[in-house]
Amino acid sequence: MAGIALYQTPIDAQWIDYNGHLRDAYYGLIVSLATDALMDRIGLDTAYRARTRCTLYTVELHLHFLHEIKQHDTARVALRLLGSDAKRIHAALEISRAAEPATVAAGAEVMLLHVRQDDDAARTVAFPPQVSAALEELAASSAALPAGAPPSRHLELRSRSKP
Amino acid sequence: MAGIALYQTPIDAQWIDYNGHLRDAYYGLIVSLATDALMDRIGLDTAYRARTRCTLYTVELHLHFLHEIKQHDTARVALRLLGSDAKRIHAALEISRAAEPATVAAGAEVMLLHVRQDDDAARTVAFPPQVSAALEELAASSAALPAGAPPSRHLELRSRSKP
Repeated sequence: MAGIALYQTPIDAQWIDYNGHLRDAYYGLIVSLATDALMDRIGLDTAYRARTRCTLYTVELHLHFLHEIKQHDTARVALRLLGSDAKRIHAALEISRAAEPATVAAGAEVMLLHVRQDDDAARTVAFPPQVSAALEELAASSAALPAGAPPSRHLELRSRSKP
Repeated sequence: MAGIALYQTPIDAQWIDYNGHLRDAYYGLIVSLATDALMDRIGLDTAYRARTRCTLYTVELHLHFLHEIKQHDTARVALRLLGSDAKRIHAALEISRAAEPATVAAGAEVMLLHVRQDDDAARTVAFPPQVSAALEELAASSAALPAGAPPSRHLELRSRSKP
């Protein structure tokens, strides 16, 4: 797995479904918890959120499920920061299993939006300079890293028999 | 919200995050539980799974987060069956809040694959005829229903200032 090591977690027994493996939604929870770790890393941590009332909202998520994850596995998440602008972050997160680190078990892409939670509504607001600088550093570190999962895309039933 | 009523659930207190609203991953859990309801509806229920060792694996998921969902809300999920083939289902699921039924809070698209869980691996296998017939009926009922959320797509930082 190529990417910047971001987060890891054991698999909670309650995350296993009737198919005997990690339920699809809990891949999403692992991605979500890894996004919290990204927030801590770039300075959007609990103290920042309490002081500014600013936080990240997820606006879009795409997941490719490539391999089953079982109860005994440990999930690791690696980051490639694909881009950012004044208010948005586009990130790829890849989940692998500790025992098979070379195989990506799932690939995610997320689009995150920086907002201030005012009393009446959430309003988009620019990142402070030090957060933008941290994002640019992560993007630079990510630039040469290869993708381990397919990119997000429009879903459709593609015929497998076509050339 | 346009779509075939499929599932509804109250919001568990544990699904609320530090932003005071439904954590992104739990939109995915609601979609996942609604997919279980779809399986029951088309004959891929617990008894079928136990008898045949066949089930659905999610291979891809795309979520658009459009509105916050709060602890006091009840989430409802409606289905549009976008297509199916011998082994796959492409479905759109829209989540709305019971108190604001005309507003879609999140839109999802999923690609689901029918597999048999053999001892050594999961192998793709064709749907039985009665399941295919149920899917065709749902697709026909869905055909005239308008989308309430954007379609799945490639994620990228599109400039908002461009025409």
